[in-house]
Amino acid sequence: MLTTNPFDDDKLREECGIFGIWGAETASAVVALGLHALQHRGQEAAGITSYDGRLFHSHRAQGHVAGNFDKDEIIRNLAGPSAIGHVRYSTTGETALRNVQPLFAELSSGGFAVAHNGNISNAMKLRRELNARGSIFQSTSDTEVIIHLVATSGYTALVDRFVDALKQVEGAYSLICLTAEGMIACRDPLGIRPLVMGRLGDAIIFASETVALDVVGATFIRSVDPGELVLVTEAGVKSLRPFEARSPRPCIFEHIYFARPDSIMDGTSVYSVRKEIGAELAREMPVDADYVVPVPDSGVPAAIGYAQESGIPFELGIIRSHYVGRTFIQPGDQVRHLGVKLKHNANSALIKGKRIVLIDDSIVRGTTSLKIVQMLRDAGAAEVHMRIASPPTAHSCFYGVDTPERGKLLAARMDLGEMARYIDADSLAFISVDGLYRALGENGRAAAQPQYCDACFTGDYPTTLTDQGEAEAGQPALTPSYA
Amino acid sequence: MLTTNPFDDDKLREECGIFGIWGAETASAVVALGLHALQHRGQEAAGITSYDGRLFHSHRAQGHVAGNFDKDEIIRNLAGPSAIGHVRYSTTGETALRNVQPLFAELSSGGFAVAHNGNISNAMKLRRELNARGSIFQSTSDTEVIIHLVATSGYTALVDRFVDALKQVEGAYSLICLTAEGMIACRDPLGIRPLVMGRLGDAIIFASETVALDVVGATFIRSVDPGELVLVTEAGVKSLRPFEARSPRPCIFEHIYFARPDSIMDGTSVYSVRKEIGAELAREMPVDADYVVPVPDSGVPAAIGYAQESGIPFELGIIRSHYVGRTFIQPGDQVRHLGVKLKHNANSALIKGKRIVLIDDSIVRGTTSLKIVQMLRDAGAAEVHMRIASPPTAHSCFYGVDTPERGKLLAARMDLGEMARYIDADSLAFISVDGLYRALGENGRAAAQPQYCDACFTGDYPTTLTDQGEAEAGQPALTPSYA
Amino acid sequence: MLTTNPFDDDKLREECGIFGIWGAETASAVVALGLHALQHRGQEAAGITSYDGRLFHSHRAQGHVAGNFDKDEIIRNLAGPSAIGHVRYSTTGETALRNVQPLFAELSSGGFAVAHNGNISNAMKLRRELNARGSIFQSTSDTEVIIHLVATSGYTALVDRFVDALKQVEGAYSLICLTAEGMIACRDPLGIRPLVMGRLGDAIIFASETVALDVVGATFIRSVDPGELVLVTEAGVKSLRPFEARSPRPCIFEHIYFARPDSIMDGTSVYSVRKEIGAELAREMPVDADYVVPVPDSGVPAAIGYAQESGIPFELGIIRSHYVGRTFIQPGDQVRHLGVKLKHNANSALIKGKRIVLIDDSIVRGTTSLKIVQMLRDAGAAEVHMRIASPPTAHSCFYGVDTPERGKLLAARMDLGEMARYIDADSLAFISVDGLYRALGENGRAAAQPQYCDACFTGDYPTTLTDQGEAEAGQPALTPSYA
Amino acid sequence: MLTTNPFDDDKLREECGIFGIWGAETASAVVALGLHALQHRGQEAAGITSYDGRLFHSHRAQGHVAGNFDKDEIIRNLAGPSAIGHVRYSTTGETALRNVQPLFAELSSGGFAVAHNGNISNAMKLRRELNARGSIFQSTSDTEVIIHLVATSGYTALVDRFVDALKQVEGAYSLICLTAEGMIACRDPLGIRPLVMGRLGDAIIFASETVALDVVGATFIRSVDPGELVLVTEAGVKSLRPFEARSPRPCIFEHIYFARPDSIMDGTSVYSVRKEIGAELAREMPVDADYVVPVPDSGVPAAIGYAQESGIPFELGIIRSHYVGRTFIQPGDQVRHLGVKLKHNANSALIKGKRIVLIDDSIVRGTTSLKIVQMLRDAGAAEVHMRIASPPTAHSCFYGVDTPERGKLLAARMDLGEMARYIDADSLAFISVDGLYRALGENGRAAAQPQYCDACFTGDYPTTLTDQGEAEAGQPALTPSYA
Repeated sequence: MLTTNPFDDDKLREECGIFGIWGAETASAVVALGLHALQHRGQEAAGITSYDGRLFHSHRAQGHVAGNFDKDEIIRNLAGPSAIGHVRYSTTGETALRNVQPLFAELSSGGFAVAHNGNISNAMKLRRELNARGSIFQSTSDTEVIIHLVATSGYTALVDRFVDALKQVEGAYSLICLTAEGMIACRDPLGIRPLVMGRLGDAIIFASETVALDVVGATFIRSVDPGELVLVTEAGVKSLRPFEARSPRPCIFEHIYFARPDSIMDGTSVYSVRKEIGAELAREMPVDADYVVPVPDSGVPAAIGYAQESGIPFELGIIRSHYVGRTFIQPGDQVRHLGVKLKHNANSALIKGKRIVLIDDSIVRGTTSLKIVQMLRDAGAAEVHMRIASPPTAHSCFYGVDTPERGKLLAARMDLGEMARYIDADSLAFISVDGLYRALGENGRAAAQPQYCDACFTGDYPTTLTDQGEAEAGQPALTPSYA
Repeated sequence: MLTTNPFDDDKLREECGIFGIWGAETASAVVALGLHALQHRGQEAAGITSYDGRLFHSHRAQGHVAGNFDKDEIIRNLAGPSAIGHVRYSTTGETALRNVQPLFAELSSGGFAVAHNGNISNAMKLRRELNARGSIFQSTSDTEVIIHLVATSGYTALVDRFVDALKQVEGAYSLICLTAEGMIACRDPLGIRPLVMGRLGDAIIFASETVALDVVGATFIRSVDPGELVLVTEAGVKSLRPFEARSPRPCIFEHIYFARPDSIMDGTSVYSVRKEIGAELAREMPVDADYVVPVPDSGVPAAIGYAQESGIPFELGIIRSHYVGRTFIQPGDQVRHLGVKLKHNANSALIKGKRIVLIDDSIVRGTTSLKIVQMLRDAGAAEVHMRIASPPTAHSCFYGVDTPERGKLLAARMDLGEMARYIDADSLAFISVDGLYRALGENGRAAAQPQYCDACFTGDYPTTLTDQGEAEAGQPALTPSYA
Repeated sequence: MLTTNPFDDDKLREECGIFGIWGAETASAVVALGLHALQHRGQEAAGITSYDGRLFHSHRAQGHVAGNFDKDEIIRNLAGPSAIGHVRYSTTGETALRNVQPLFAELSSGGFAVAHNGNISNAMKLRRELNARGSIFQSTSDTEVIIHLVATSGYTALVDRFVDALKQVEGAYSLICLTAEGMIACRDPLGIRPLVMGRLGDAIIFASETVALDVVGATFIRSVDPGELVLVTEAGVKSLRPFEARSPRPCIFEHIYFARPDSIMDGTSVYSVRKEIGAELAREMPVDADYVVPVPDSGVPAAIGYAQESGIPFELGIIRSHYVGRTFIQPGDQVRHLGVKLKHNANSALIKGKRIVLIDDSIVRGTTSLKIVQMLRDAGAAEVHMRIASPPTAHSCFYGVDTPERGKLLAARMDLGEMARYIDADSLAFISVDGLYRALGENGRAAAQPQYCDACFTGDYPTTLTDQGEAEAGQPALTPSYA
Repeated sequence: MLTTNPFDDDKLREECGIFGIWGAETASAVVALGLHALQHRGQEAAGITSYDGRLFHSHRAQGHVAGNFDKDEIIRNLAGPSAIGHVRYSTTGETALRNVQPLFAELSSGGFAVAHNGNISNAMKLRRELNARGSIFQSTSDTEVIIHLVATSGYTALVDRFVDALKQVEGAYSLICLTAEGMIACRDPLGIRPLVMGRLGDAIIFASETVALDVVGATFIRSVDPGELVLVTEAGVKSLRPFEARSPRPCIFEHIYFARPDSIMDGTSVYSVRKEIGAELAREMPVDADYVVPVPDSGVPAAIGYAQESGIPFELGIIRSHYVGRTFIQPGDQVRHLGVKLKHNANSALIKGKRIVLIDDSIVRGTTSLKIVQMLRDAGAAEVHMRIASPPTAHSCFYGVDTPERGKLLAARMDLGEMARYIDADSLAFISVDGLYRALGENGRAAAQPQYCDACFTGDYPTTLTDQGEAEAGQPALTPSYA
């Protein structure tokens, strides 16, 4: 089986998008639209849980939002004025239905549903402890740890139990919870993963990105602050800050690749930042060429920026098919190698004999870059100069982004010259870390107190990594005894 | 929607059949065959869980055994030398997949799967207590209570934890559990529900009825004793008797209707007992008639016994279709009333002008009897004398049998004369309680210490009924907050 | 893959049942009920075509009537006051959906739907001729030949075109056709396959058996006569007899096995005839024994007749499971041999040490008889005497009944003694041909002009067999060029 | 139900793409890849028929190529070294499975499969005539007419019968036929619809566009000529020209919208032509503005051309979601109006306060243009100047392109000023017909003998339109009598 999006396999992947609304007339329909706008954050499964004042309703399934929620009956069953939803990406084999969110539990205080974007980096340790005390887990999801911590907390009020739970977890989390009493949204103390708040009529919305507000016609209010917990009930909206204040470290890769270009992230236009990265790249790493050609679609804004700064014409030298996005089996070896052209095809009539500046947002394993350069050479390109709109990705992420193990990251295995030879480009250059910070409006990276989490480039992780540490110390991984 | 088996709707229903095998080559295939032989004990859902020495595998689905386990791939996935299975009947609306057994939990000691036939009569009380201590339930099944009691037990060894759990529950239960260490089978102290033990080569089998042993080619060893816990491990078979000894009270209705006629139950042939009930009925309640006609198929053995004792010819006056067993929607009111003939049709050529003794095993609501008598009259029967192979069913069962609420039981609402008029029979008679015990080889019912549980006839319940008592005292029922 | 009905595999099989209604309020719902009552005549596929005064609607699918027509929506879509339906049995591989009836064609005169029970014995020759003239076939069904003959007929009026078509075909056919103008029902000149006519309110019904009239609450009017064509239109019911009169030869096997016991076939009760065959068999072939045991369910009426005539008690020595009727895959060789018990299980407690007269309706290949006798011996039977309620089946049927090729028929390969040894019975006997005719109320078979088609016993085929003759003369079979 | 691609609803739609290969090792896998590259030509259904030297195999289904052919088993079943395939777009209600191509018929000469791109403009008349002579149609497809003409032709050799059939039809057709003897490809005498020929190893390929050759790794040989019939058999490739020579009139809209930008159509790069149209438009209709913004993705090449010619920066002012392409139901009126943003969202941060030149390829009904202009205004655009890369579309197409009836075409209802006011643009301009021809390398349109079919702009249809004429003269449309 060959996927029809072979190049996407060589991207870092945001693992989740979340959306919640409290107090709307057709809450689950709005959540479905909002999740659709966040589909790029998780394409393997989608779920919605609603509360109708008496009962919780849930529909969760593998697949895209449009496929899972395209039946009137499904939306009608998700009754009630409040609902939360989740889109999920996950590595193969772990996307059993039991892990598809929102997760739900019947606590002694009533129903409790949760949608989580991020990763709890001490989940395995907490799970072992809870299990030994008699808690029975139904999923392999780190999110379920939070639920059991709430269920077994010694506190009485639900918000206190929830804060008690969060104080025991470490890592990155943006959470939206739905209970009979209200909706709770919160963001981890460093604000690693994004979360914004908006308004649609009288209803309050939380979402991973502003584009989800745009699509449902809502107004952007503000970002949820790092370490903030927002409680929405019949009594209104209340903000709590139960954690010690820390300097925020939001994920820098949201600006490079994860977020949609039409979102406003941390107060800046994602599209503008990407164009500015391209312009900065043109200044840092100029080259004499005929055309600036993006790898579609992720390289387009940076390529426009590069072209405008350099004066070299922007051209569609690679055409992307609209009909990729699901797997497509190919028998016979004879045709297997043909697969790469299903998604991208060189515009040969344009490329032939020309010197190309090829722009992509990042290099992960390098397998895609290799094929794209080869495709341009096959189409007759005279020279191919690759320019990358991010620094070399040399470290794994443990905060809710799917990264290959470190040994498979090209930049962890090779220096710049080796990489250029590997992908067979005439030249290869990455933007510098300080250049990236400049494109984001900073003077450069503040080494003592970096403004972003940039661990994937620098290896500077902003939290302890308990499970990772235990794993390196030989603690066996949690392996469920069921298939 | 009209079911194609309208008459079966008017039967008491055994709620479950269970089967387990330890140490076979293709354990799950044997379980599938065994469950198929027990299909009459539960026709709404079926499941199998196997253990391959490393992982547990499970497949559970709504529907029949043949439909759920007819794919090689499914059986192959249920790998390993040990497996347990379950067939389930349940009242409408509660057969969500989450309630289909075997249930499974990942305990701190490892995987634990359980298949249960019976009903825990203090499950709601225990569930409230566990929930308050932080246990999160995934089903509405009473069986899950046992699992959480095991998970949170203060004992160390799994068998001790299991016995600790059982000592807290009240009611009827035959259980087969599968763990990494071994298989545990047990029967409640009164032995209300059946459980037998057999051998197939070197493998040990547990099953609800002997017919399941026959069908898989196994040898019958013995019944599991009331209050006995049998442990099968690599070390061999070990019998424990952790409960105080009590006088057994096995369910008498197994002999009347639930068990297959080719099973041996409590040491006697079910077919012979049913014929003997028919003969006893002919002696107690004779009638002058042309033909003895059974309501097929449940009335056939008693009708043969009645015919042989009375000398009146046995005839197929009602023909049963082989193609009923699933629902069959009928629009239009015009055809709705036709539905009853889908299952049974009068053999008019035979019936016309004749005096009929009509034999059925029991009357529950009476709706079916009414229609059958009418059908015979429409076919031209001169007289219809109904004879029932059990005493009047006047009380609900709380031990794992689906009974209508008491107010819907015909015998709880009417005396004999009213019942005869209601079903429009020329005469109606039931076997006496003592006659029933005589057909079972006793001298009659031992009032001080009855030999069977006959609560559905006598109202004499052999255990306390905690949840039922609380419900009558106004304790609100457990209603899950999810749909 | 092992089917769960291994014994049924050793029966002759009626290939079709048909049902039509003209002028009812919810025609397709009535057809669904009627087909359900005819399900025993064809269990592999079912279809209904209705006409709403403007458009024809059709739903055809593999599987049983109950499964195919159990959704309100499907019945609602089959709108209109007239509809015809078909159930089909067919040998493996040929039941592609394109062959599932009713077949439909858009003729120049309008829509034309047809349901056919029987077999056209010169279909291949006609098809070759039509194909050469430009007719394009969509199925491999012999029934489609009739449609193309109608389409290309030189006559003008539809009834004339239809009669023109029938005069060119040879073999057995009962047909119900639905057109915009009316319903046409007809039966071949020898009346080989059955067809009856009834009334439900103002609506006219045609059906293969009277049981279908009973089940929908209709009144039996009469059989359609051999060679008769009945036309039902707005103008009323009209009978045509376009063929030269011939002496009828209805299929004798309908009385032995195909028809339901509660049907009236050719004016006699099928149940009574089968009991009388049993009685005749007891007179012709008596035996000293303890019990008369039927092979359920087909042997039951003859066993009752045998028991009443001989005075030996009728007993259920073999118990049949209700839950067979679909395939059930079994991996591993270890369990494959267990399959036979899925359908039938010996009632060992009864059988042990007894002398058994075992009654079945027929022996085809003998494979089932062999297993049943073995099962009784394994259960401890002292003697097994097999008595068969039909003469030896020694010839294939070419009139719409699925028979194995002649070489596989036990009676074509062995004499009586060899057969008895093959199935390992202590004795074996069949009813005589004249005995069978006597049970049907005749004095015996009229050799010069036999009253029934009994070709499967006697090899005396009442029509020429053109395709069969060509095949034996070396004409290659029609093999479609698509898979 | 609202589709997630609301804007695409306002495009003309190519109705089909076709692909065939003769003599490859895994023919059907290559066809699946080729059809995937042609998916933009038909997104509602896809089918493949193969021939393995003995049997034809076929798989046809509603939906996309990737979904229909993503299972190894399906491709394996499509065995053999030759195969043809088809993708189809069709208006709602007519895409019954019976119309999905390739169509297949068993002729007296053997199997005959055909895939057709185009439209037969006298199909209804021919169908009436064939039906009256006894031909039975299975589909409502115009393509089936060709098959029946072949089946009933008086000629003997298949190629002669095929040419005989084509001489009777009128309209636009590119056809690929598969028979046991060989593959036949042909193009109507005017070459209205495209068809190219390529080579992959020893295998010969035919396809609608060159991009399908690229994707499977094949080499482009040449276009099939208008009026040419190419026959590929074991004996090699043979070209026939059975029609009188005429001056070609290929469809001009292929260059504007239908073909993929990376295809070479009639010898020119589609991408280059579209950029040149944009440049021509900038010269013909200049405007003072801040940004050139394309309607993605169809407006992108023309926008790049316009920007390069005008010097105004090219910017992504509208972001397109990647996850549209299937329907997405929305209950509640509250959210219905939100649907338009599912596909396109304004890049507000960029647009705000700017003067925009908005480029699209065409205006059909105008509904989409209206919404896009509104979206830009809502996002704060100071001015919106719309420029269209084709002349006004004022006439329906009868040659295999789905066009709304004439009364719904904006340009047939309004003059330029009215259109500008309707879509609420500050200015609106279309390229001139001569400007379009110049962009294609001509000096302008040759009025006496136009180089292209441009009937949708000019109303100058190159063939007679028999069915259309009859319809206007009152001949009732062909309406099938089945639903």
